[in-house]
Amino acid sequence: MADTASVPAGPAPRRLVPRLPADYTAEAARRRMAFLRDVTGASPQHIGRYSFDPAVLAGNIENFVGVAQVPIGIAGPLLIDGEYARGTFYVPLATTEGTLVASYNRGMKLLYAAGGVRTTVTADVMQRAPAFGFDSARGARAFGEWVTAHFADIKREAEASTHTGRLHDIEQFPASRFLFLRFNFTTGDAAGQNLTGKATRRACQWIQAHYAGIRQFYLEANLATDKKSSHLNILRTRGKRVTAEATIPADLARQVMHVTPGEMFRGRQVSNLGGLMAGVNNNGNHSANAIAALFAATGQDIANVAESSAALVHAELLDDGSYYYSITIPALIVATYGGGTGLPTQRECLELLGCYGAGQVRKLAEIVAATVLCGEVSLGAAVITDEWVAAHERLGRNRP
Amino acid sequence: MADTASVPAGPAPRRLVPRLPADYTAEAARRRMAFLRDVTGASPQHIGRYSFDPAVLAGNIENFVGVAQVPIGIAGPLLIDGEYARGTFYVPLATTEGTLVASYNRGMKLLYAAGGVRTTVTADVMQRAPAFGFDSARGARAFGEWVTAHFADIKREAEASTHTGRLHDIEQFPASRFLFLRFNFTTGDAAGQNLTGKATRRACQWIQAHYAGIRQFYLEANLATDKKSSHLNILRTRGKRVTAEATIPADLARQVMHVTPGEMFRGRQVSNLGGLMAGVNNNGNHSANAIAALFAATGQDIANVAESSAALVHAELLDDGSYYYSITIPALIVATYGGGTGLPTQRECLELLGCYGAGQVRKLAEIVAATVLCGEVSLGAAVITDEWVAAHERLGRNRP
Amino acid sequence: MADTASVPAGPAPRRLVPRLPADYTAEAARRRMAFLRDVTGASPQHIGRYSFDPAVLAGNIENFVGVAQVPIGIAGPLLIDGEYARGTFYVPLATTEGTLVASYNRGMKLLYAAGGVRTTVTADVMQRAPAFGFDSARGARAFGEWVTAHFADIKREAEASTHTGRLHDIEQFPASRFLFLRFNFTTGDAAGQNLTGKATRRACQWIQAHYAGIRQFYLEANLATDKKSSHLNILRTRGKRVTAEATIPADLARQVMHVTPGEMFRGRQVSNLGGLMAGVNNNGNHSANAIAALFAATGQDIANVAESSAALVHAELLDDGSYYYSITIPALIVATYGGGTGLPTQRECLELLGCYGAGQVRKLAEIVAATVLCGEVSLGAAVITDEWVAAHERLGRNRP
Amino acid sequence: MADTASVPAGPAPRRLVPRLPADYTAEAARRRMAFLRDVTGASPQHIGRYSFDPAVLAGNIENFVGVAQVPIGIAGPLLIDGEYARGTFYVPLATTEGTLVASYNRGMKLLYAAGGVRTTVTADVMQRAPAFGFDSARGARAFGEWVTAHFADIKREAEASTHTGRLHDIEQFPASRFLFLRFNFTTGDAAGQNLTGKATRRACQWIQAHYAGIRQFYLEANLATDKKSSHLNILRTRGKRVTAEATIPADLARQVMHVTPGEMFRGRQVSNLGGLMAGVNNNGNHSANAIAALFAATGQDIANVAESSAALVHAELLDDGSYYYSITIPALIVATYGGGTGLPTQRECLELLGCYGAGQVRKLAEIVAATVLCGEVSLGAAVITDEWVAAHERLGRNRP
Repeated sequence: MADTASVPAGPAPRRLVPRLPADYTAEAARRRMAFLRDVTGASPQHIGRYSFDPAVLAGNIENFVGVAQVPIGIAGPLLIDGEYARGTFYVPLATTEGTLVASYNRGMKLLYAAGGVRTTVTADVMQRAPAFGFDSARGARAFGEWVTAHFADIKREAEASTHTGRLHDIEQFPASRFLFLRFNFTTGDAAGQNLTGKATRRACQWIQAHYAGIRQFYLEANLATDKKSSHLNILRTRGKRVTAEATIPADLARQVMHVTPGEMFRGRQVSNLGGLMAGVNNNGNHSANAIAALFAATGQDIANVAESSAALVHAELLDDGSYYYSITIPALIVATYGGGTGLPTQRECLELLGCYGAGQVRKLAEIVAATVLCGEVSLGAAVITDEWVAAHERLGRNRP
Repeated sequence: MADTASVPAGPAPRRLVPRLPADYTAEAARRRMAFLRDVTGASPQHIGRYSFDPAVLAGNIENFVGVAQVPIGIAGPLLIDGEYARGTFYVPLATTEGTLVASYNRGMKLLYAAGGVRTTVTADVMQRAPAFGFDSARGARAFGEWVTAHFADIKREAEASTHTGRLHDIEQFPASRFLFLRFNFTTGDAAGQNLTGKATRRACQWIQAHYAGIRQFYLEANLATDKKSSHLNILRTRGKRVTAEATIPADLARQVMHVTPGEMFRGRQVSNLGGLMAGVNNNGNHSANAIAALFAATGQDIANVAESSAALVHAELLDDGSYYYSITIPALIVATYGGGTGLPTQRECLELLGCYGAGQVRKLAEIVAATVLCGEVSLGAAVITDEWVAAHERLGRNRP
Repeated sequence: MADTASVPAGPAPRRLVPRLPADYTAEAARRRMAFLRDVTGASPQHIGRYSFDPAVLAGNIENFVGVAQVPIGIAGPLLIDGEYARGTFYVPLATTEGTLVASYNRGMKLLYAAGGVRTTVTADVMQRAPAFGFDSARGARAFGEWVTAHFADIKREAEASTHTGRLHDIEQFPASRFLFLRFNFTTGDAAGQNLTGKATRRACQWIQAHYAGIRQFYLEANLATDKKSSHLNILRTRGKRVTAEATIPADLARQVMHVTPGEMFRGRQVSNLGGLMAGVNNNGNHSANAIAALFAATGQDIANVAESSAALVHAELLDDGSYYYSITIPALIVATYGGGTGLPTQRECLELLGCYGAGQVRKLAEIVAATVLCGEVSLGAAVITDEWVAAHERLGRNRP
Repeated sequence: MADTASVPAGPAPRRLVPRLPADYTAEAARRRMAFLRDVTGASPQHIGRYSFDPAVLAGNIENFVGVAQVPIGIAGPLLIDGEYARGTFYVPLATTEGTLVASYNRGMKLLYAAGGVRTTVTADVMQRAPAFGFDSARGARAFGEWVTAHFADIKREAEASTHTGRLHDIEQFPASRFLFLRFNFTTGDAAGQNLTGKATRRACQWIQAHYAGIRQFYLEANLATDKKSSHLNILRTRGKRVTAEATIPADLARQVMHVTPGEMFRGRQVSNLGGLMAGVNNNGNHSANAIAALFAATGQDIANVAESSAALVHAELLDDGSYYYSITIPALIVATYGGGTGLPTQRECLELLGCYGAGQVRKLAEIVAATVLCGEVSLGAAVITDEWVAAHERLGRNRP
């Protein structure tokens, strides 16, 4: 920016957001709110009305001032034939998009009648992907051989910093005079980004102490693609890789959705073509809707919608006229421990799903995927029958 | 699913979530909560503690039961040299990821001292992209010529259903025996997905009434890529295309970030390489963090993090040793009207930014982009200096 | 490369390939061949045996020494129902991959019986895409407005350097403080890369003389994506966008290919899924085979296989049991004028197709696409019936 | 195609290309040429003038009628500091694009003076990727576990059909109710597509005989992405992954290229930005030019330009003002044995490079990559200095 003269003079002096020695307190939040009123002229009445002691927020937020109250609607019953989630569920969806809950509800009704959604977690792995630079490509290759030979040492170091993380393997990606290492961990019920970051860093410190000739080192250089969608993670999984599938009899489709499987399948082919041409990271309809709503409700990191919204849809029109429909979410990042999962409303939403506490994370992944599938079928049908806009007119007229 | 025998028998009968004639009421919410307690055994204490009359929620949610209380932290002052956002801002970020607010705050401190963030909206357009099928590719091509010749009629029909939407142009994408039309609208202060859906549908009904030989029609077939990231939208914009840029003097970088511009730039090159190899939709660091936190706070559709998280970063090491850094967000979907923007806490967060009401949407887009840039610089520096993991250890130790 | 000590000492002095004042002569070629024998110790017997006067090569090669003799096989008759190519064709394919001609031949037999291949050119446009840099994103945006306002002037300048090129439009792609302009030309029967380069350069010189504030200018910066595949060109066409389509009756499929349309379609779904996951630029089977073989035979630029090999396949299983199959090639770069098209064997191959001379380029594009489609169907069927490996064993056992 | 009435009536009867019992003979070729003259009216004089006995073509072509004579120019000396290619090389480039040889020559001159090109093969692997379908995703996952447990058996079967192929590992990619297996082989001096096809088929026959419940099987379903570019192969290598790198002193750049490293590097940043926005599979300049020209000259499969043209460029401006430039080709498919490598002119071109016969394939890969790098630098500089169009005007005026 050449002509910095045009930059408005900053208020002098720069007024800092107040912080208190006991900062995770209602008093600190009030002080910050008063400050905001003063500097902005606004008078928020609702943000400050939360129902818990701010002490619970240490580790989850800084400069706490209040809460966003995001409305939760309940969709269900959702019938799941999972390996971890089995039976019926009532799904809390936090959203402000009218029609969303109704649409998922409609899909749940259909798939309940069809015998439920089968869910399967096929991979479970979280990464950190440091980059190491050398004098030449040969230097990078030699380092890769050394890493392979010293995997046991590296694994020992990585796991020394964590109770639950286990280093499964290290993938190598050479480019130019760099070697990118993709550390693949299992992380228990945590999403695991912090855990893998800490463990990988420790492993890398050991590597740096034991291998000469590393010219550059970055704990992250856009190969793990945290908070970004990437083809690498579509191929190789980040978080949970989970498939939801169902078979819909023709008569049910007609009765509930006013559409035949043949019509749905024909539309799917065109969606595949459009998506291929557009260069999508998801040939389905709108998995991000369920994912974002469940993430906001259950204390997941909603920024992970970025990578979790990738999907692979595959459908088949079966010989008996029924419709097989599946969605595979290759990078679903969920936790039932750590992050925001222990906060008051977030924990309660997990409890509604029977997913709070130890050993629940795959159950949650299955519930997310099953919910997603219901919405895929519902929106897919609504586009075919041209009910889509009408539904939004009826349920989504939310102008103030 | 062949062996449906393994599907657990659904509870008989299927128990429906209660709905009342007056459904947007505290009573209806309580009834649903009681139902949830009954069917799940859980006893939520916090979800039901919202501070507003549920009557405000009509058009935003169905089956309302309560709220997710997502903590909001304040980052700032953020100094912006925008065309709509000018001066200092205190940014409400709704998140449960410890460190996030602190990291953005650190970037804001640096860029304040550097003279602020310059922001520019370079495109503003929202789409719906219907697909039309014909007997042959020639049929599709002939239809395209007809559409071009009848643009004025189509525009008139499209705009007849909306006060604020204006049809700017229709792009054509032929493939196989289909023609995909991308209707590009400006949509005022609304994000505009509903508006464009309704207007495009009306235009398409007119088209179908006036053009013979359309064999298939879908109002959407994965070319607009709502709630999905796509290369098309990176190229051609969905929502706002906004660039934030700043120039950081070398001494400031060292003082605030403990890093030189040269070191940051060198790391950026490796991130570009890693991202290219990984196939990312964003060669930056973590724009989704700011976007998701601002979306949740201000009543945006958080599912749009899927497409809004794409980004193009470009940096330059200048001759005087300072660091030019820019991020372009090609598909930022924001609103200051409609959707969730009018709900109580959401509206208040918009008011804190001076963004509630008419004519504010580009200001909000600029604030989002400026916030994003601060976080890019902060995390980028923390990776270089290896302070990243330590910061999360200090601020993000959030295991229950 | 730090330790340059390990670089082998170059021969001293550096021995240059001989050049003569009359360099496009047999004598010059012989001198170079003698030089090669001397410096390499090899004794080529066949390279030097070409059938034409090297004088014809001026403008096509430097340091000419002889020819690669690439064997040509004939596939056909290929029945085309095009707008430019109509009737039967015998297609010269230059390849060294055994089975290739036979496989295309088999597809041609099937589609001949099915009534031929319908071909349609739906777009025709060649680009150069210069990048302009400014002080800020706002500078880039202002420049874009100026370009729009001065399109007539720019068009006049661009077209002043060419007889056949016509500037159709200029697309704008802003990113950071740059504006990329995509100049779209029609180029007659030439492929047009040189023509558009020259015309765009002239237009840009005019722009630079008339617009102040351009800090950086590049005639090309990876947005036209010459010799590279890109999503932009899949979306917006480079060269010819051409669709080939056919409908195959069930009994013919069984008789000629030993497969039913249902089996082929079912396999296609899995190929779509695999391709989506792999991140292909082509969900078809092997269009590059026909394209490379036709390019080598007819004097096209074979490096353009890079972008011409992108494709969009769409198939449908029709109600009567027949199989609709189409392939759309979005960036097919062909010429019947200029480049290598006038060289002796290359021109003859064009003449075999009735494509040499003025006004033939779309005919050639249609022939390429029709040939491609025959190979798609043939290989697709061979994978289903597991005849693929056996065919290569029979026809492709080419170890020396 | 609905109105088949518009298809031109095919000639009755269909006239077949003649085949003889002794088909790889000059007589058979003449008979086919006579047939072509008859059906097309053309009179080719040059196609039929080849210098070898057609008997050598068995396994390389069907319906042989003659040859494409593609002119070969010599670029060099190219100085390579490889692990297999060491010293100076004179590179035969078969092309019809004027300027191409001259441009590579210019780059070779520069990098010779700079101490040569360092080349490194960092991976070497060829694939076939069959897809297996099951009743459900769980069925696919169970199969994957079985494959892992039976790797030794599968390897034994795969290797039983080949002398040189070795199965290194099998990667698994689950999606929907399918499991895609990526069989990674080393294939000696052959490119290996046929070898891996045959070996994988044999392994899959063993698998099918020993594992119950496979509902669908395809030896290929777009995951190996033969003859197509894919992100999978950019990440995980197909053929050779090879890096070429060089460091160019500032004075040399100015002297030979009339450009400073700083100017080149600045331009590279814009090319990275443009390529990222365009969605390229190659952020470099034009690697396909060298690859196609070397492939045509040395009997490689030119259709493999499709995947071989992907590339990752990484450059650095060093503290001493010199310019480090590297290109990594992640899917370079080359052979020095089998395919077209044994044909007369093709073998001679390999011999010119000292690459014919056993144990030469990595040497050839290094020569290709080193040649590519020279062209990257040359064209990159020509764009900066605006000499690019002028060079084509001088050397590429090839209109007839």
